[in-house]
Amino acid sequence: MKYLNHIDSPADLKKLSVAELPALCEEIREYIIAETASNPGHLGSSLGAVELAVAIHYVFDTPNDKLVWDVGHQAYAHKIITGRREQFHSNRKYHGISGFPTMSESEYDAFGTGHASTSISAIMGMAQAAQLSGNTQRNHIAVIGDASIGGGMAFEAINEASIRNVNMLVVLNDNKMAIDDHRSAMSKYLLHITSSATYNRCKTSLWNFFTSKKKISNKLVRWMSEIGNGVKGFLLSGSNLFQSLGFRYFGPANGHDVKVLVKTLKRLKNIPGPKLLHVITVKGKGLKLAEEHQTTYHAPGKFNPETGQLISNNTANQPPKFQEVFGETILELAKQDTKVVGVTPAMATGCSLTIMNEVYPERVFDVGIAEQHAVTFSAGLAAAGIVPFCNIYSTFLQRSYDQIVHDVALQKLPVIFCIDRGGVVGEDGATHQGIFDLSFLRAIPNLIISSPLNEHELRNMMLTAYHNALTKGLPFAIRYPRGRGVLTDWKNEPETLPIGKGRVLKDGKDVAVLSLGPLGNNVTKALELLQSENIYPTHVDMRFLKPIDENLLAEVAGKHKILLTIEDGIAKGGLFSAVSEYLTEHHLSNRLYHIAIDDHFVFHGDIPSLYKELSFDAEGIASKIREAVKESL
Amino acid sequence: MKYLNHIDSPADLKKLSVAELPALCEEIREYIIAETASNPGHLGSSLGAVELAVAIHYVFDTPNDKLVWDVGHQAYAHKIITGRREQFHSNRKYHGISGFPTMSESEYDAFGTGHASTSISAIMGMAQAAQLSGNTQRNHIAVIGDASIGGGMAFEAINEASIRNVNMLVVLNDNKMAIDDHRSAMSKYLLHITSSATYNRCKTSLWNFFTSKKKISNKLVRWMSEIGNGVKGFLLSGSNLFQSLGFRYFGPANGHDVKVLVKTLKRLKNIPGPKLLHVITVKGKGLKLAEEHQTTYHAPGKFNPETGQLISNNTANQPPKFQEVFGETILELAKQDTKVVGVTPAMATGCSLTIMNEVYPERVFDVGIAEQHAVTFSAGLAAAGIVPFCNIYSTFLQRSYDQIVHDVALQKLPVIFCIDRGGVVGEDGATHQGIFDLSFLRAIPNLIISSPLNEHELRNMMLTAYHNALTKGLPFAIRYPRGRGVLTDWKNEPETLPIGKGRVLKDGKDVAVLSLGPLGNNVTKALELLQSENIYPTHVDMRFLKPIDENLLAEVAGKHKILLTIEDGIAKGGLFSAVSEYLTEHHLSNRLYHIAIDDHFVFHGDIPSLYKELSFDAEGIASKIREAVKESL
Repeated sequence: MKYLNHIDSPADLKKLSVAELPALCEEIREYIIAETASNPGHLGSSLGAVELAVAIHYVFDTPNDKLVWDVGHQAYAHKIITGRREQFHSNRKYHGISGFPTMSESEYDAFGTGHASTSISAIMGMAQAAQLSGNTQRNHIAVIGDASIGGGMAFEAINEASIRNVNMLVVLNDNKMAIDDHRSAMSKYLLHITSSATYNRCKTSLWNFFTSKKKISNKLVRWMSEIGNGVKGFLLSGSNLFQSLGFRYFGPANGHDVKVLVKTLKRLKNIPGPKLLHVITVKGKGLKLAEEHQTTYHAPGKFNPETGQLISNNTANQPPKFQEVFGETILELAKQDTKVVGVTPAMATGCSLTIMNEVYPERVFDVGIAEQHAVTFSAGLAAAGIVPFCNIYSTFLQRSYDQIVHDVALQKLPVIFCIDRGGVVGEDGATHQGIFDLSFLRAIPNLIISSPLNEHELRNMMLTAYHNALTKGLPFAIRYPRGRGVLTDWKNEPETLPIGKGRVLKDGKDVAVLSLGPLGNNVTKALELLQSENIYPTHVDMRFLKPIDENLLAEVAGKHKILLTIEDGIAKGGLFSAVSEYLTEHHLSNRLYHIAIDDHFVFHGDIPSLYKELSFDAEGIASKIREAVKESL
Repeated sequence: MKYLNHIDSPADLKKLSVAELPALCEEIREYIIAETASNPGHLGSSLGAVELAVAIHYVFDTPNDKLVWDVGHQAYAHKIITGRREQFHSNRKYHGISGFPTMSESEYDAFGTGHASTSISAIMGMAQAAQLSGNTQRNHIAVIGDASIGGGMAFEAINEASIRNVNMLVVLNDNKMAIDDHRSAMSKYLLHITSSATYNRCKTSLWNFFTSKKKISNKLVRWMSEIGNGVKGFLLSGSNLFQSLGFRYFGPANGHDVKVLVKTLKRLKNIPGPKLLHVITVKGKGLKLAEEHQTTYHAPGKFNPETGQLISNNTANQPPKFQEVFGETILELAKQDTKVVGVTPAMATGCSLTIMNEVYPERVFDVGIAEQHAVTFSAGLAAAGIVPFCNIYSTFLQRSYDQIVHDVALQKLPVIFCIDRGGVVGEDGATHQGIFDLSFLRAIPNLIISSPLNEHELRNMMLTAYHNALTKGLPFAIRYPRGRGVLTDWKNEPETLPIGKGRVLKDGKDVAVLSLGPLGNNVTKALELLQSENIYPTHVDMRFLKPIDENLLAEVAGKHKILLTIEDGIAKGGLFSAVSEYLTEHHLSNRLYHIAIDDHFVFHGDIPSLYKELSFDAEGIASKIREAVKESL
């Protein structure tokens, strides 16, 4: 690596000539491919943003100038050239560097990201702060993708920016792709800008004229940009969305031509106010297979760095992923009832709604990065008698809290929430752990909350929720984790469960372990470990957090001195909280222990390491039971 | 009321000729004025939407056709002509009709509303449901204001609508006003559409041409609308935002000319796909003072129905509103430190940031209906060393849950959340009660949560939060209710409180009452009631829900057999939950009772009635203490 080996900070970058930058970009790209081939990560987006990262750090004075990467999974090049090249092999690993920009990791990460559509608000706050303190020199850059800019909060920020007239640059990194290929008015519009025939005939000369002048006054730049945009607007058959919203629009520019990017950014640096640079990039750029199969290579797992060929794990005889079970089961229900539909905000592949989409595309609604809309749209469907299964990752469900309260639960509409990636998700880390849902959902009246122990239970719960919806029951949440279940023979004939009833998995004595969801499988293992020690706890699978099975709690509390709750979420407000409330409300003096996440965020790493840290593994659970038994002797 | 007395449903409305509708509208307007003069409500918006309500019900086949009112506070005329004329005197009263559309109240209320920006998603769900079931005849109408359409979730729905190509009409009710006069890119844009000189010269003839033809084929209508819009787009100096987003744009039309509205809606009824009708209305229309002072008359309280003159309560010698104390105190802090700023999403008047805005308008940021953006914008400010007090009503804070978790708490940014209208808010009802915040916030790591007993405490907590921010402490929430405090002499010299420490207000025995926030004042009254019965409880003001004062809990639990928690929020997850957890974690066998809201929504009514229902008043608290003492004897 002729160039990259000497880049330890953006200062080193600035020592290169512009002519040397394309070679550096190639080296960075090779480095990302080589590293992620064996240490999986967000490959496609990061390959697409190499030139952007280099050009921005080359032109701007980071970290004094502020740079925010929306979502942040495209920022590997940024990390590599801001002093984290050596640590990049630890990307997403336990105690390694984060896969996302993180303020505590580097001063070059001006804002921590992970969820979509936050960058414009955050950079606008910083730009406003600079304006308030009289700093007119500082530059503020947000890089946001064409999918993320469709999120509601990005629009809220755009809608506000021109009014404040702060000095900020939004770089719209347009690769025509979300994780899935999602169409929206915005995506159609962006395509229209870049493909309009009239426009394309004039674009090149106009753009060259605008960007080529060496010594040019700010005034002239401004004038030209206005004229340029006016002409463009006219050519674009009469509309530029961003200009309508008070942004100066520039572009589209080739996001893989680092020289053009440098030239353009230098010009834009001196133009005050809110401006948007529209850049066209290719997701997976530089790795042929990744360019051709963009959804697969969004986060492909391990692959051959030379060919890009995926290295497939041998998954024969492994239990299926919960995602696949969801996908197959909703398809079964959809086959039986035309009223069954699937809704998801940009997670169709991740949650496996793609399975149903292949058979019934007209009944699968991927609404893009729009969690709020997804929930209230589902509410509208339910109000009109449709049975929507609304699938959202737990961490992104936080975006639609108000909609769940106000548009679903208060209205008593039987929307079925399939909450994917509940609990600890692993390598994506603190921004993506699904650990708050049990707490924030339990506070909502009229909401049924369940979590399946295994694949059979997921299918049972989906059928139960479906029947509940048919009879205009209450909204119903089913929460399950990322990844594989425990049953290779997963395809049971689903049965309807009694709502709000748990079940005893193992009858024992002294201690009763109350678990919710798949952590129950680790309890089973823990109980096996304890047999040799003559400890035989009872094990209860609560199935429902709400309504909680009070009869079962009464029975269990009556028979066991010690209770232990186990859940893969925040302790405050979840199952531990619910059982605490039950005991105090009924003035019961059982000793209650808990395994849960105690009031802290959970950072990234492989699941086994995190489970060990959190005592979620069999050994951790066994230890806790031992401790409880010992203390209570 | 020559006409109105005979309107018991839209069917009666349809018996009138178009020529009679203006007179009916006048009667409805008089009726709304007469009723709200003595029974306060949302006057201004409802006066502005009289003709819209009449025209929509006249043209469309409600309730078969679906009509959703965004926010819903403008829907009084709708309620009056859909069978609720006689009950309208009970509007917003305890056990009366709701001030907002409510599905359980009437089949004409196709969706319950209250919070802004939900209508397009909801109606789109219903429209999609009709399409799925092969019903191509049903019409779907959402009426949304120019402020609400700026909310992120409205954009998410608009961004999706053209892709689905469902049959829906969005009526944009443009009165150029939020509750406060807020400017945004959208508001500037709408003003531009309606005031463009070139456009206005051509508008009338174009519009007349488009709307005047009696017998006209659908094809022709479609063609004309396209041509019309093309021409309009050109005249509007090259942009129509809504057309860019795939909507057919019609308008602007005079929203107070009911005949034009009827004619226009009849035409639009037969045009398929998503379309937007831009209607210009005047907030407060028909009551001169209300037209002139639109913010004041948004919800003016009692007034003289003839003149509009407000009937002022005698507030001399009354304690100030918590809102005023917040407003005055942030101004004091802002005077001392230029880093102090105020941020609010469209609640500047309601939360009294207007007080600071008069002195430091450049440091007050009303970002419009954009709770998500407000929080992350505040995070950006805090990241750059500014001290933002972000003021949001509790119920609307639900909109920014993810931002609080992901952009503030995880990033450890010292944003100060001033949570207004915490607890039961009264007449606005179920959609607006601020009863979930304690539960959903307590689950978030790194967040300090406090609630002041009274005005002095609010000032102390604001100063404490300010010092905490200066020293880069953790994010800090201060939650207080709507309305007046208890101290006429409210202006203390604020002092810094120890974070996470409560205080004993009264030392007693047997029972310890643990209260959070201003309900503590009712505890004081309850204790007075109990003196004659020889019951002398201890009273603790917790001050902080998080970190909770464990030393104080230990002390109190050691000295009192009975504990009683009191909070004006949902029991699941709040103070009761926290104390339950503390007791079970420390294996303490105190008897714990609680007063809180038990897993149900709270509907509308005056505060005394609701407090009585919930046992939040002194007598309710005293009863609970009696009961606890009796049971524990």
